Amino acid sequence: MSKSAIKITSANVIDLRVPTSDNMLGSDPFHKEPDYSSAVLHLETDGGLRGVSVVFTIGAGTDWICHGIEDLCQLIIGSTLEEFSEAPFKLYRRLIDHHQLRWLHDGVFRMAAGAVINAMWDLWAKSEGKPLWKLLVDLEPEFVADCIDWRNIGDALTRDEAIEILSACRPNLEKRESEMTPVGPKAYCTAGWLGLSDEQILATIRKLEESGFDSFKLKVGRDSDDDVRRIKFMRDAIGNELNLMVDANQFWGVEEAKRHVERYLPYNLKWVEEPIARDDVLGYVELSETFPDASFNFACGEQGASPVIFKQLLKSGAIGYCQIDAVRVAGVNDVMAIILMAAKYKIPVCPHGGGIALCNMIQHYGMWDQIAVSGHSDTQMIEYIDFLQESVEHPVEVKDGCYVAPTAPGWGLEFVPEFLEKHQFPDGEVWRDRDPKKKGAAYEVL
Amino acid sequence: MSKSAIKITSANVIDLRVPTSDNMLGSDPFHKEPDYSSAVLHLETDGGLRGVSVVFTIGAGTDWICHGIEDLCQLIIGSTLEEFSEAPFKLYRRLIDHHQLRWLHDGVFRMAAGAVINAMWDLWAKSEGKPLWKLLVDLEPEFVADCIDWRNIGDALTRDEAIEILSACRPNLEKRESEMTPVGPKAYCTAGWLGLSDEQILATIRKLEESGFDSFKLKVGRDSDDDVRRIKFMRDAIGNELNLMVDANQFWGVEEAKRHVERYLPYNLKWVEEPIARDDVLGYVELSETFPDASFNFACGEQGASPVIFKQLLKSGAIGYCQIDAVRVAGVNDVMAIILMAAKYKIPVCPHGGGIALCNMIQHYGMWDQIAVSGHSDTQMIEYIDFLQESVEHPVEVKDGCYVAPTAPGWGLEFVPEFLEKHQFPDGEVWRDRDPKKKGAAYEVL
Repeated sequence: MSKSAIKITSANVIDLRVPTSDNMLGSDPFHKEPDYSSAVLHLETDGGLRGVSVVFTIGAGTDWICHGIEDLCQLIIGSTLEEFSEAPFKLYRRLIDHHQLRWLHDGVFRMAAGAVINAMWDLWAKSEGKPLWKLLVDLEPEFVADCIDWRNIGDALTRDEAIEILSACRPNLEKRESEMTPVGPKAYCTAGWLGLSDEQILATIRKLEESGFDSFKLKVGRDSDDDVRRIKFMRDAIGNELNLMVDANQFWGVEEAKRHVERYLPYNLKWVEEPIARDDVLGYVELSETFPDASFNFACGEQGASPVIFKQLLKSGAIGYCQIDAVRVAGVNDVMAIILMAAKYKIPVCPHGGGIALCNMIQHYGMWDQIAVSGHSDTQMIEYIDFLQESVEHPVEVKDGCYVAPTAPGWGLEFVPEFLEKHQFPDGEVWRDRDPKKKGAAYEVL
Repeated sequence: MSKSAIKITSANVIDLRVPTSDNMLGSDPFHKEPDYSSAVLHLETDGGLRGVSVVFTIGAGTDWICHGIEDLCQLIIGSTLEEFSEAPFKLYRRLIDHHQLRWLHDGVFRMAAGAVINAMWDLWAKSEGKPLWKLLVDLEPEFVADCIDWRNIGDALTRDEAIEILSACRPNLEKRESEMTPVGPKAYCTAGWLGLSDEQILATIRKLEESGFDSFKLKVGRDSDDDVRRIKFMRDAIGNELNLMVDANQFWGVEEAKRHVERYLPYNLKWVEEPIARDDVLGYVELSETFPDASFNFACGEQGASPVIFKQLLKSGAIGYCQIDAVRVAGVNDVMAIILMAAKYKIPVCPHGGGIALCNMIQHYGMWDQIAVSGHSDTQMIEYIDFLQESVEHPVEVKDGCYVAPTAPGWGLEFVPEFLEKHQFPDGEVWRDRDPKKKGAAYEVL
């Protein structure tokens, strides 16, 4: 079926929530009892294909995003896939530069716009029978450059430089693709969740090591003495050769971060993640200047709200690892811009995973980066968390500590229908009889 | 009636939109056809008082904010004014640090939280029979400091420094208050809207001069040659002694901004407003270093999404004027933090006005700043635009180029009931028969 014949006929937005707070999955000092959730977008077409995307949230607020996506979708009902695939930037600008909606700033607005954009990319890849990463790899450098909003990032990376970066990889595309199909991007995993005992952490490490992992993350931020003790415990458990990273989930201010991080110097850490606020660029610059000789660099990005924030973090040398998220900015177009900027400044792209289906998405970005942008796999690691893979029909696979290249067409984000139905908020069976105080915004943890 | 007896019984959120695009009021290169709008919050109490706040938007998306405010309000129904007024920071943290909602980032989430916080401050001021500025002026320095979230800004301003700044003004409070009651904060006005002819601009200037104004702003960004010509025209029209400012509404990238601004050097401008993206802190640093000897400084803030962004702009010396908005961040608590940071770095606070009822709010911040924080009126100017003052029961007053100190209790944000009814979206009489293509998100201008 030709792309001009595939027309968007309707958009269904589903508020999917999983009461993960029941067993404290993924909690950290700020996000005390998350209920992993997604605003799921199904773009239906008259061609039988369905464009799918998600915006991950942690419970309350999923309805805010759903409301936004529904509002934006009225702009694409009736349009064809061809209109999109000929020039994806046109849709990007219709959404991001909407003369009235742009007043809403980033956050909910940019995330909702990203959902629409990502579902269109999904549809395109499906119409070609390719996984998303392969669609991206096959794009001409000029076409990629045309997808990007250069207006606010041109001082860090020009259109010509982007084309140069992409073109330099072209001669090796086939080779890199065949290298990465059996052994995809290297993965890493959090072994040291805040709630776990030493024994539990050790058991997690041993299990991960058996699966070929050599890089482990530990959550910090609650208690400085205990954090240092746990870092030492983990370093002793894995030996000095394997990679150890810590993650503070933005818990500190700049001065406080310095005091904590100072104590981490002896443990040969690879990175210190989110020591401070998500948009404190100058704070990251200051931290990075405070510890010039440390083994670690700073890492952030999972809550980076826009390419402008990433531009500053990358151009200034404030961070040493670029942790893009798949659903925080305005979809494939924004993420391509960020990955290209990271390539120019030689900062490894180490995407943020977890949640519901984030790993399913970021593996595509890892593939594209390592085949077609940076063109190597020497420095990157991609977060892997196996939470809730039972929710999707194409769970991520990991082998010998690496992702297995996804083969399902598009993002591979199809949800298991029974899972969707059961977890729909607020009327699915998981939610309807639940204590109202544990539902949505009413669910406070003080 | 005691504050403990005043209980929030219900929250009504009204989607108020005015089709200002019909006559292009307030348009700029990005916001091509704005419909000035507000998410209006009415917190009803059993004590007869009503807490009122607004979040200004420019049409589409007001429903997104309304949705968010309604969701948040379930956290305060049943609470008393006393619980708030004893420790406003408690409510601030319940909202901003909500363990699940905080995932939504700034933008819609922070604006909706600000609406709830601002309506509570309104209620408190009304219960004391004071205009908002007077309530703030009467707060003890320690109490103000306790309202502020220090976590991410302490490297720029400490709690002790804030108390010192406020305490230094205490001996002069009465004097400053009596000086500012007849003659409030100095105002400035935009005379050079993009759509206006030279004759219309000149007529606007002459009319404003007759009302005592000596400071005028011009919109730029559309065409460089014509912009320079219009700047020269306005400078010639007002002479070299009066203040001339230009505003580019974020239209340029950093390099482009340099080329445009370079041409403005001969015209003795006071400030260049929003040359680049709202959150490009390092871009502002670079611009400011590029023009060290210019007559002007850079100005921004009307779309500053959080105190962390303001912290960086102020601490780095990137901007010379701090243009807070009344409804972009999380209400009085965030704005107090920003005004205090500006005072420490001696950056004049020149709030962003216009829209619906923004001027009605920012006059209170101007009064508080100039009486109790910076404690002087030597360098500040507050934007004044008389749009839509017919919508409110206490319109702002300007005399001899200065605001007249507001006297109505609270923010003085009571809307004329007939205006509210007529402009309610989408069922009010102004909207119900309107072309659906000119309504909300469906209203595209490409």
